Amino acid sequence: MKLGTLKNPNRLDGDLVVVSRDNQTAVRAGHIAPSLREAVETWSESEPKLQELYEALNAGTAENAFPVRLEDFHSPMPRSFGWIDGSAFIQHIKLVRQARNAPLPEGLHTDPLVYQGGSDTFLAPDEDVPLIDPSHGMDFEGEVAVITDNVPMGTKEADAGQYIRLVMLCNDVSLRGLIPNELKKGFGFYVSKPSSAFAPFALTPDELGDAWKDGRVHLPLLVDYNDGFFGNADAGHMHFSFPRLIEHCAMTRRLSAGTIVGSGTVANEDTSRGSSCLAEKRMLEKINTGEFVTPFMKVGDTIKIEMKDEAGNNLFGTIQQKIADASDCK
Amino acid sequence: MKLGTLKNPNRLDGDLVVVSRDNQTAVRAGHIAPSLREAVETWSESEPKLQELYEALNAGTAENAFPVRLEDFHSPMPRSFGWIDGSAFIQHIKLVRQARNAPLPEGLHTDPLVYQGGSDTFLAPDEDVPLIDPSHGMDFEGEVAVITDNVPMGTKEADAGQYIRLVMLCNDVSLRGLIPNELKKGFGFYVSKPSSAFAPFALTPDELGDAWKDGRVHLPLLVDYNDGFFGNADAGHMHFSFPRLIEHCAMTRRLSAGTIVGSGTVANEDTSRGSSCLAEKRMLEKINTGEFVTPFMKVGDTIKIEMKDEAGNNLFGTIQQKIADASDCK
Repeated sequence: MKLGTLKNPNRLDGDLVVVSRDNQTAVRAGHIAPSLREAVETWSESEPKLQELYEALNAGTAENAFPVRLEDFHSPMPRSFGWIDGSAFIQHIKLVRQARNAPLPEGLHTDPLVYQGGSDTFLAPDEDVPLIDPSHGMDFEGEVAVITDNVPMGTKEADAGQYIRLVMLCNDVSLRGLIPNELKKGFGFYVSKPSSAFAPFALTPDELGDAWKDGRVHLPLLVDYNDGFFGNADAGHMHFSFPRLIEHCAMTRRLSAGTIVGSGTVANEDTSRGSSCLAEKRMLEKINTGEFVTPFMKVGDTIKIEMKDEAGNNLFGTIQQKIADASDCK
Repeated sequence: MKLGTLKNPNRLDGDLVVVSRDNQTAVRAGHIAPSLREAVETWSESEPKLQELYEALNAGTAENAFPVRLEDFHSPMPRSFGWIDGSAFIQHIKLVRQARNAPLPEGLHTDPLVYQGGSDTFLAPDEDVPLIDPSHGMDFEGEVAVITDNVPMGTKEADAGQYIRLVMLCNDVSLRGLIPNELKKGFGFYVSKPSSAFAPFALTPDELGDAWKDGRVHLPLLVDYNDGFFGNADAGHMHFSFPRLIEHCAMTRRLSAGTIVGSGTVANEDTSRGSSCLAEKRMLEKINTGEFVTPFMKVGDTIKIEMKDEAGNNLFGTIQQKIADASDCK
């Protein structure tokens, strides 16, 4: 099943819609739950009704179906009560830490790295990313993320998969110029991680077929930067699976329905797959040539993130954002 | 004006009530906004109506007023889309860093320290705090916090005070045994900061009279541990004011209405004022005697946090929590 959220200036959570498998049509589902957030909060009741609507939509029999216009879609959850972003691709950790001369964490392969991100003001998938100052070193990060149901405190990896309700793609905007000083303070990211954006459609794991396996999405994440190829790294190479990340996140607290857990930047050791963020590409340049070559993002740059199944179907819709001068953003 | 939230098993945000100045009576305000969160999100419309109800309640003329029973109250916001906790008392930073042999951050006096906390599952002010393992080194932290309205990105300290809508007290539960290893990983707190609790009543700043000055609450925070005096440090000694913390929080993103910003543990240099967390008391013991004496919290311990005005009136109601074995918690 595919769910989405229409922008609504009068409702911060937006309006819930069901989207057809081919991304072509949608139908409002406000009678089932006003928003995607509230659908997840009432999943045992809402899910069968949404599923029924999804089947009717795919069969062409849903009443009041309408054509999808991507500019009407917000991120599936325009805001969430929890956004915990992991860093589950070891190759990403190695390269970005090398880039800032930071040591690798102890327990790199056994103890997941996560941080709690700002979740009150996500950007829409087509929304301009406000750049305040080029010295902030703006970067994109292509990621996979899941939305959980309520997760009891102390849930273990083996049991955590059952709480994954939806899968999404994310652009976790990062300000590399602010990270070294902020992390040196010891409290982790805050100002260096402004609002993220998500691809327009959230999918139930079954929608991914065989590509959803071992708590991972085994498909390439397609990243284009300024309309050119930038990366197609396999998202299945997560060292820590989503259930393992959830175990970590629920170690000392319960998680509420609607919590988003991110994979961190998708990265492969095979460098022919490119990268999902500028920092990695820059570090590879430095290793290979002695110099950082590619600059960080500037006003006017564009970033596109999407994922296709083996038949070439766009699964989640597309994140397609432009970098804009902050003073020009609302 | 004083606002509160009644627990409601069917509504995660609880039910909005207005509470009388003397904490004795309350009246439901669901016709103005269903929850305190939604009241803040619609403040320009809800505030005058809530104020009118507050005046009627204090005058004894509000219809359907009922006696306050503290056990019916949740934290004013049982969940929030954003909880950013600062560390604005330099004395606290100095003592806890000394306790874990960590260096003081550069910019200690000029660059605020904040982290993004978990905000989806706050505890009620009388709710047991689940202790999973005594080796986690559970500690309380008595704090002041504010709830903001929408804050534009780039707001400066001089303009930030106007966005402060409500003031609260907080118990920011901390797991000292998990902090050193977690911070060493470089991403800040996550598992070491489980769910916090807030005192039952949220106050508009005007309710504090002269005690609200320079973006700070100039009153002692009263902390009792296991029914004995533990601290009465002056919350006015914040090095960074709330407007300065908000400037920092809004540096690279806007904040949404309902964001909670915390002061960090209230701490004074005058050690006769006691402490607002165990870690500081332990560090002072270590400095004075060479040994940490006071252990961290164990099952059955109690913590009480409140604040009185100069006439002795309890302003925010009382945080009164017991530590319980996690397996006994719901």
